[in-house]
Amino acid sequence: MELIEFTPDRNEYAYTFGGVAPIRRIKPGTALRLWSDDAFGGALTSTDDVSAEKVDLRFVNPQTGPFHVEGAEPGDTLVLHLVDLQPARDWGASAVMPFFGGMTSTDRTVSLQPPLPDTTWIYHLERERGTVVFQARNSDHTVELPTNPMLGTVGVAPAAGEVRTSLVPDRFGGNMDTPEMRAGSTVYLGVNVEGALFSIGDGHYRQGEAEACGTAVEGAMTSTLIVELIKGHAPGWPRIEHDDAIMTIGSSRPLEDSWRIANADLIGWVGELTGMDALDTYQLITQIADVPIANVVDANYSVAVKVAKDHLPRASKPFDGIHDHLRDLARGLAGA
Amino acid sequence: MELIEFTPDRNEYAYTFGGVAPIRRIKPGTALRLWSDDAFGGALTSTDDVSAEKVDLRFVNPQTGPFHVEGAEPGDTLVLHLVDLQPARDWGASAVMPFFGGMTSTDRTVSLQPPLPDTTWIYHLERERGTVVFQARNSDHTVELPTNPMLGTVGVAPAAGEVRTSLVPDRFGGNMDTPEMRAGSTVYLGVNVEGALFSIGDGHYRQGEAEACGTAVEGAMTSTLIVELIKGHAPGWPRIEHDDAIMTIGSSRPLEDSWRIANADLIGWVGELTGMDALDTYQLITQIADVPIANVVDANYSVAVKVAKDHLPRASKPFDGIHDHLRDLARGLAGA
Amino acid sequence: MELIEFTPDRNEYAYTFGGVAPIRRIKPGTALRLWSDDAFGGALTSTDDVSAEKVDLRFVNPQTGPFHVEGAEPGDTLVLHLVDLQPARDWGASAVMPFFGGMTSTDRTVSLQPPLPDTTWIYHLERERGTVVFQARNSDHTVELPTNPMLGTVGVAPAAGEVRTSLVPDRFGGNMDTPEMRAGSTVYLGVNVEGALFSIGDGHYRQGEAEACGTAVEGAMTSTLIVELIKGHAPGWPRIEHDDAIMTIGSSRPLEDSWRIANADLIGWVGELTGMDALDTYQLITQIADVPIANVVDANYSVAVKVAKDHLPRASKPFDGIHDHLRDLARGLAGA
Amino acid sequence: MELIEFTPDRNEYAYTFGGVAPIRRIKPGTALRLWSDDAFGGALTSTDDVSAEKVDLRFVNPQTGPFHVEGAEPGDTLVLHLVDLQPARDWGASAVMPFFGGMTSTDRTVSLQPPLPDTTWIYHLERERGTVVFQARNSDHTVELPTNPMLGTVGVAPAAGEVRTSLVPDRFGGNMDTPEMRAGSTVYLGVNVEGALFSIGDGHYRQGEAEACGTAVEGAMTSTLIVELIKGHAPGWPRIEHDDAIMTIGSSRPLEDSWRIANADLIGWVGELTGMDALDTYQLITQIADVPIANVVDANYSVAVKVAKDHLPRASKPFDGIHDHLRDLARGLAGA
Repeated sequence: MELIEFTPDRNEYAYTFGGVAPIRRIKPGTALRLWSDDAFGGALTSTDDVSAEKVDLRFVNPQTGPFHVEGAEPGDTLVLHLVDLQPARDWGASAVMPFFGGMTSTDRTVSLQPPLPDTTWIYHLERERGTVVFQARNSDHTVELPTNPMLGTVGVAPAAGEVRTSLVPDRFGGNMDTPEMRAGSTVYLGVNVEGALFSIGDGHYRQGEAEACGTAVEGAMTSTLIVELIKGHAPGWPRIEHDDAIMTIGSSRPLEDSWRIANADLIGWVGELTGMDALDTYQLITQIADVPIANVVDANYSVAVKVAKDHLPRASKPFDGIHDHLRDLARGLAGA
Repeated sequence: MELIEFTPDRNEYAYTFGGVAPIRRIKPGTALRLWSDDAFGGALTSTDDVSAEKVDLRFVNPQTGPFHVEGAEPGDTLVLHLVDLQPARDWGASAVMPFFGGMTSTDRTVSLQPPLPDTTWIYHLERERGTVVFQARNSDHTVELPTNPMLGTVGVAPAAGEVRTSLVPDRFGGNMDTPEMRAGSTVYLGVNVEGALFSIGDGHYRQGEAEACGTAVEGAMTSTLIVELIKGHAPGWPRIEHDDAIMTIGSSRPLEDSWRIANADLIGWVGELTGMDALDTYQLITQIADVPIANVVDANYSVAVKVAKDHLPRASKPFDGIHDHLRDLARGLAGA
Repeated sequence: MELIEFTPDRNEYAYTFGGVAPIRRIKPGTALRLWSDDAFGGALTSTDDVSAEKVDLRFVNPQTGPFHVEGAEPGDTLVLHLVDLQPARDWGASAVMPFFGGMTSTDRTVSLQPPLPDTTWIYHLERERGTVVFQARNSDHTVELPTNPMLGTVGVAPAAGEVRTSLVPDRFGGNMDTPEMRAGSTVYLGVNVEGALFSIGDGHYRQGEAEACGTAVEGAMTSTLIVELIKGHAPGWPRIEHDDAIMTIGSSRPLEDSWRIANADLIGWVGELTGMDALDTYQLITQIADVPIANVVDANYSVAVKVAKDHLPRASKPFDGIHDHLRDLARGLAGA
Repeated sequence: MELIEFTPDRNEYAYTFGGVAPIRRIKPGTALRLWSDDAFGGALTSTDDVSAEKVDLRFVNPQTGPFHVEGAEPGDTLVLHLVDLQPARDWGASAVMPFFGGMTSTDRTVSLQPPLPDTTWIYHLERERGTVVFQARNSDHTVELPTNPMLGTVGVAPAAGEVRTSLVPDRFGGNMDTPEMRAGSTVYLGVNVEGALFSIGDGHYRQGEAEACGTAVEGAMTSTLIVELIKGHAPGWPRIEHDDAIMTIGSSRPLEDSWRIANADLIGWVGELTGMDALDTYQLITQIADVPIANVVDANYSVAVKVAKDHLPRASKPFDGIHDHLRDLARGLAGA
């Protein structure tokens, strides 16, 4: 398998899904090793760096891409298998930024209150221990946390000629900020434009569910992934498959609408896999779904609805078993 | 420890939190073994039973209680440790009811569309295998699911003289419908009236997160619990402690407000345990919280925000370590 | 017509709908002249009075009532015609209170931000000019505003044995805070308990739509009203009739759900008056409704959906023309 | 004043804000007379035309434009004064479309229920009487309604390189669907890109507030407007000025967030005009604002918050009195 490595120059980042010329054309079946900067564009390097001074809000959440996938047409399914995510720096940054996050008023949920203090935390990476270290800013408390590398943002060009900021997730994927997007995940995205034009970014060394303050342990990332294409079968919303579970991701607001979207899409998917109608599938999912919140901070909120494969028939594999196939390929690649 | 067994007569159920005279007075330190009927009041016993014909909506979600806890005063903390939850029948029932559930319009999110078909599922309990069996109504699909007994509804009398239906959770607890409320859980509830007046009910043999269709595998339950009282320290919202995690439960709408409530309460709690201020705690929780949705169907939606004890200091135990103490007592009781 | 005058003693106020013994039993056809205190219980009398110091949050929004209406049974329709609303003091008060109001985080939409400054405004009433005077606290700006006396809170005892705070409106009416509740209004409320047990309060000398900061020009009020009873025909949600319009009031959250509730109820009502089915009525209302927001601050938000009688058939009068009848009676009463 | 007339060819419509090359370059101070098609692209001409068959959802809400305004730069204020709106056909159309509208589940608020019946109404225009005629589909009911011509959609190219569908309103304006956008209105929009690139469309011969079913009396429109430019002073969200009132429009979801946005922007604006701080302005607006809902159907919901000029100081005119100036110019143009 061909492995293409790519590290963007500073002027090559994409800040939108859609509206950007592809930086590479690739064939389905290609493996990529991509460097992506953190969501701050690397602007916060010390606890003395305050977001209001250092972060240019016109240039946040830089994406590596877009990639034009040859043969991809509207209605097709782009398949991205995340083989490996490696922190590309020895530290990550997180910040409480003015009027951004879940426990503050924002530019959407406006209040007249003053913002929370603009504050930055730096997490040192203990690479061999597989941890990052949280150090409180206003007391001595410290705690070591296991890393859990993930990509906050994965998406394709939107439909209907839209161009959308990399900050707000939607039907096309984007900034879903779910910890389920990790090494071992296969992501399915409906193709809206010729070439699909996907990009990735927003690496997190670790994130809790909901990404409460709006920023995870943000870090530059080296991501290895395999790109595949399924003709047709485009899902309406992003889907993820793990070795042990399948899930759908809805992104809207209020949060219950994100859940409804994901739940409806999962009912359709599980209905296909089990041969059941929507009513029976609705009932079954009621008893077996896990519902990890992804983010409640990105203007559109994201929720995953997830079903363990244990509860699904073994015979009928999602997307004809492409996940298993890519897992096999990935094993060969891991040593590359 | 005294163990009081109680099975209510049909006319002894409570359908509200508050507004009902206590059925028993108990001392802190008492163990209870309580029988509770299912949320349908046992009205659905076969797939031929349709909710519109069998379920009297004025008498749903019957509660066993309320119990008057001697010495409990407003501002105190009621502690309920769930020792054991045993299905009290060999079957559970679930139903898609007209205009109730997450994937339909309701009496709150009204539409002009017709209701979904009024449909009942019966789950046979394989007690020795620890499973219930899902059987599709409209196809041959069947799947065996592990039981995960839990209580959908646990609460106290509300503040401000209110009396509230057992269907809608709020600050006083009630119908939170979270799978986190299981054997091994210690629940902390702020006391609002003299005697606390708590009741329990709504046993589920199993439920997925969000309780999508509005009803879990509903079943009569035999619940063994220990009742304790902490003077003062009333939490603003319900809290649960497990051996390995602590969590808070918010119930409101829209769903993000439930999350905000739970998150704020957890920030306060974790701040106490770590000695950190709110800003540092907000940051830490952002990186370590799990956020399992409880329900998106009960008029107020419920969310748990949960932190593993691994990430908290060992020295500072929640509520002075009463959970560990009750776990010890429970071991003695299990064989009773 | 009998006219009963009633001014409650300080210890006779009701702070809930339901759960309070009636202060009077009256017959349908009775006129009442009721004194009600302001929502602060008269605690704010000067701009030096700060809510956190003066207002006891356990005793806010005192209601005058409840009144037991003889013969009223569940399923009946209580009819209250507001004949006259007269400011009972020469000043009104308004306040920005900590964590209350539409442009601040609250106990439901929680944030970590500090509260807005606890601030009181006093509006002097120019009774003969029919105005109140706004005087800025932090500058010299002043403006004279026409009075528009209204009742923020009108309701009956809730269904299902509930007792609900007077602060949060719902199906039973309560704290809807709509400027449409003014002299000349006929209010229709579904009866839930024997005697209906209605109460009124929360006079406003003036309020903009939405009651943005959470408090209007709050003032003690002398309200003259006629009480009538229609057997049966209970509306699901509160309805108001004016000489020139009919409207329904929904109260829930988020705000679009309040609108959906009111819209659905209005579709039912206009369908009865026009003989059209729901789909045609939905279409017609789309082109003719006015939708004044009532409040976005009372935990449940309230919206009126309103249709001018000009667009409705003249022949079919709402509730058999009782509004016109009460208007005639009111004329006789005005001089009493 | 130069008056440019323009009627787009079928292939000249814009379906997005942003992402479309300008069809004309104009100078500030130019008057335009523009023809715009209805939101269905003229596809529904009879009650036999059903949206699912006739309306291509990729090509709905066609916009006339965009126009490049010479000299307009980011941060400037585009001023559009609507001189005259004339129905360009003798009929308008409205439809209940599957899964679109306020009283149905949608692709955002998903349910498993079937859609409402796909139904079209045709409104005959009585031009001389200034009315349109509603004719029920499923009964004989008919009613004549005054026309109230308005533009559902007015907007500029968005910021941050985004391209957005003409269906969903936001900060850049777009499909706000407010009846306040009528002849006599002056609209202020912040410029985001060089040339502003504004377009208009979605004429309504009449609409109730909220646009309940999702479509007003949709009709082709001939709009006469004057285009002006103010250097700098870009408002954050769209503003409208009438002879007797000023207002701001927020568009988001849930609906209370739209209100918060509009309210915050109005507080800023009224604060400038009165010299008051935010707290005093918040208080004053609480007592004087009208809050007509615009739409609850366009994925983002829109609300206007409106203040009568009677309550504002006469001396300080919004935007230095440009509205009055344009009203004068418009009088000269009306006879053109």
